[in-house]
Amino acid sequence: MTITDIPTELHFEVELFYARQQHLLDGGDIPGFTAAFTEDAVFAVRPAALLTGRQAIGEAMSGLVARFAADGITRHHWFGMRHLTHTADGALRVVYYAMVSHTAADGSVTREPSSVVVDELVRAGDGGLLVASRTITPDTVPG
Amino acid sequence: MTITDIPTELHFEVELFYARQQHLLDGGDIPGFTAAFTEDAVFAVRPAALLTGRQAIGEAMSGLVARFAADGITRHHWFGMRHLTHTADGALRVVYYAMVSHTAADGSVTREPSSVVVDELVRAGDGGLLVASRTITPDTVPG
Amino acid sequence: MTITDIPTELHFEVELFYARQQHLLDGGDIPGFTAAFTEDAVFAVRPAALLTGRQAIGEAMSGLVARFAADGITRHHWFGMRHLTHTADGALRVVYYAMVSHTAADGSVTREPSSVVVDELVRAGDGGLLVASRTITPDTVPG
Repeated sequence: MTITDIPTELHFEVELFYARQQHLLDGGDIPGFTAAFTEDAVFAVRPAALLTGRQAIGEAMSGLVARFAADGITRHHWFGMRHLTHTADGALRVVYYAMVSHTAADGSVTREPSSVVVDELVRAGDGGLLVASRTITPDTVPG
Repeated sequence: MTITDIPTELHFEVELFYARQQHLLDGGDIPGFTAAFTEDAVFAVRPAALLTGRQAIGEAMSGLVARFAADGITRHHWFGMRHLTHTADGALRVVYYAMVSHTAADGSVTREPSSVVVDELVRAGDGGLLVASRTITPDTVPG
Repeated sequence: MTITDIPTELHFEVELFYARQQHLLDGGDIPGFTAAFTEDAVFAVRPAALLTGRQAIGEAMSGLVARFAADGITRHHWFGMRHLTHTADGALRVVYYAMVSHTAADGSVTREPSSVVVDELVRAGDGGLLVASRTITPDTVPG
């Protein structure tokens, strides 16, 4: 099974990109989190939710973060099993699994259903990576 | 603690190899999954189960996949904490942790006991990687 | 979002370093585990626990390992979402998420609250990596 021709350096850049973005989200830094999307990014949660643009994504995430904080729940996003390929137009396509842990103040831990996520990453003007689109398929949605 | 002399490129190839193989399995593509094993691969689940050969592995996995699909359960395999060394005969020995999440149609999430897995990887004729043996020790089995 | 200037080889060395150290701990090899810390390492679990020195870390870990073994519980440490930067004095700062799975003899699986961990790694005399400090913030502790 031959896999990919993505350079090693790019693999690592992608790994750190995701770690950094989720640290920001889990730490409640919504402007930092949304800055890793393109201005016109598309954020979809199948089958129905669709956010378009950095601002809409930020508003939705702020609402979520505030709700969990009010409930005293600490969240962490874990990504894994990441695979990378190039799309025909030169973007980077990243497929991975995501799970979110919820820890209540009393220490009880629950997990949301896992998801399969497909991202398209592009280069920003400063040379860094940005998410141009993110499509999340929760395990409860038929693939 | 000095660790390994595995080249960086090989590390990444291995990482993507596992992501790809498990995406295929979790997506129900059994021929794609088994194609990542050698024809005479050995697949063991300690203490007692032992499958030999790509075909036997495929049949066992098809049965599992059909059973979970009938129960409306979506499964995802997560691998992590991977360590690589070379064996004396030049194969690649990979030791890692595995866990499997089960999501029911109502969104409830359960997890099977984690496992420690030891794989031996070899080169296929086309230059890609193949699993020559996989030995799974579930946490419920004394190490 | 530009991320880091850590060389790719160092990224992988760090990844394997953590896998190896946790395999040793989960396998009950406390001397092997503590050998990955500096002699005067600081091991903190917020808000209050603080161990100083390889010997104190080893004694505390031996106690934990013996307790879980007596209860028939198999533990595995999973690290993920790792981010690396250099500190001003040339050490390596690693921020990551950790979770621990507990499997009882009957196969039931529970998880401790996740943690955010910040490590500082330095070079040993033999060229390998060592943990100079580890600070663990469980999800139940306000960040």
